[in-house]
Amino acid sequence: MKGILILTVNNRPGVLNRITNLFSKRNYNIESITVGASEQEGVSRITVVVHVEDETVIEQMTKQLNKQIDILKVIDISSQAIVARELALIKVGVNPATRSEIFSVIDPFRGSVIDVSRDSLTIQITGESSKVEAFIELLKPFGIKELARTGTTAFPRGMQKSSEGKSLNIV
Amino acid sequence: MKGILILTVNNRPGVLNRITNLFSKRNYNIESITVGASEQEGVSRITVVVHVEDETVIEQMTKQLNKQIDILKVIDISSQAIVARELALIKVGVNPATRSEIFSVIDPFRGSVIDVSRDSLTIQITGESSKVEAFIELLKPFGIKELARTGTTAFPRGMQKSSEGKSLNIV
Repeated sequence: MKGILILTVNNRPGVLNRITNLFSKRNYNIESITVGASEQEGVSRITVVVHVEDETVIEQMTKQLNKQIDILKVIDISSQAIVARELALIKVGVNPATRSEIFSVIDPFRGSVIDVSRDSLTIQITGESSKVEAFIELLKPFGIKELARTGTTAFPRGMQKSSEGKSLNIV
Repeated sequence: MKGILILTVNNRPGVLNRITNLFSKRNYNIESITVGASEQEGVSRITVVVHVEDETVIEQMTKQLNKQIDILKVIDISSQAIVARELALIKVGVNPATRSEIFSVIDPFRGSVIDVSRDSLTIQITGESSKVEAFIELLKPFGIKELARTGTTAFPRGMQKSSEGKSLNIV
């Protein structure tokens, strides 16, 4: 299963290393990790996506992470209703014959072309990982020259599912 | 100065830890790191943004990283023409009075609302870090409840600046 953890940490040298070390020691491969500023000054927010056998592993990791210095909070959102997004930059080879065909793929995915050279286009796309992956698959036949993905960042939804009603997912 | 390194690595447990360890040992604080799949199967691409005193530090780090097992390539793009993007999710408090005001801020930044609840909006924005920061500043007066940023991912431009001409930045 895919586990997603949100960590709130003090923005100090060595914190990220302690986190990756914990996963490394147990031989868990981090699928993606994103690190950025949070809503609080001096505090960073880290989103870790990791493949594990079952939920107990995630529970264990959450406990272990919570014990670390400079880790303020760990939330396991693996089984919660979440909003998850990632960004990918894709440089694809073009020639006059394939250019319009590539644009017809970009439009329905709401991708945007952010750089153009004589023989390549750089496309930006955002969305859930599955959407990003489907888009990359469609571009593969044209020749992907370079690919950079940020990895997933995620939020629990504004309102969790309850008897009161559901949160509205409008995109 | 801000240093940006692109690392191409084998997708194995422990690689990320060796990288963060190198920065941690020298007491450099990683400002952001993104890890994702690359155009090659089994190979990940990591973008590291780090604040350092000067270029020589970046050169040293590049050499050190290149020596590590499972690191295939390290490119220092700190002083190159690049396309850099990040994605941020921002949950901001709303009430009937502020709703339309918030939307008037979102539009010019081409942000999109991806989740709505009774008292909050979750907005997605993409762009260079400076644009993302400006947008966050504008939303602060409304009350930012949660903020998640992926950190920067980047490419060298399709065509580097040369006597032949510049690459065209169309967004």
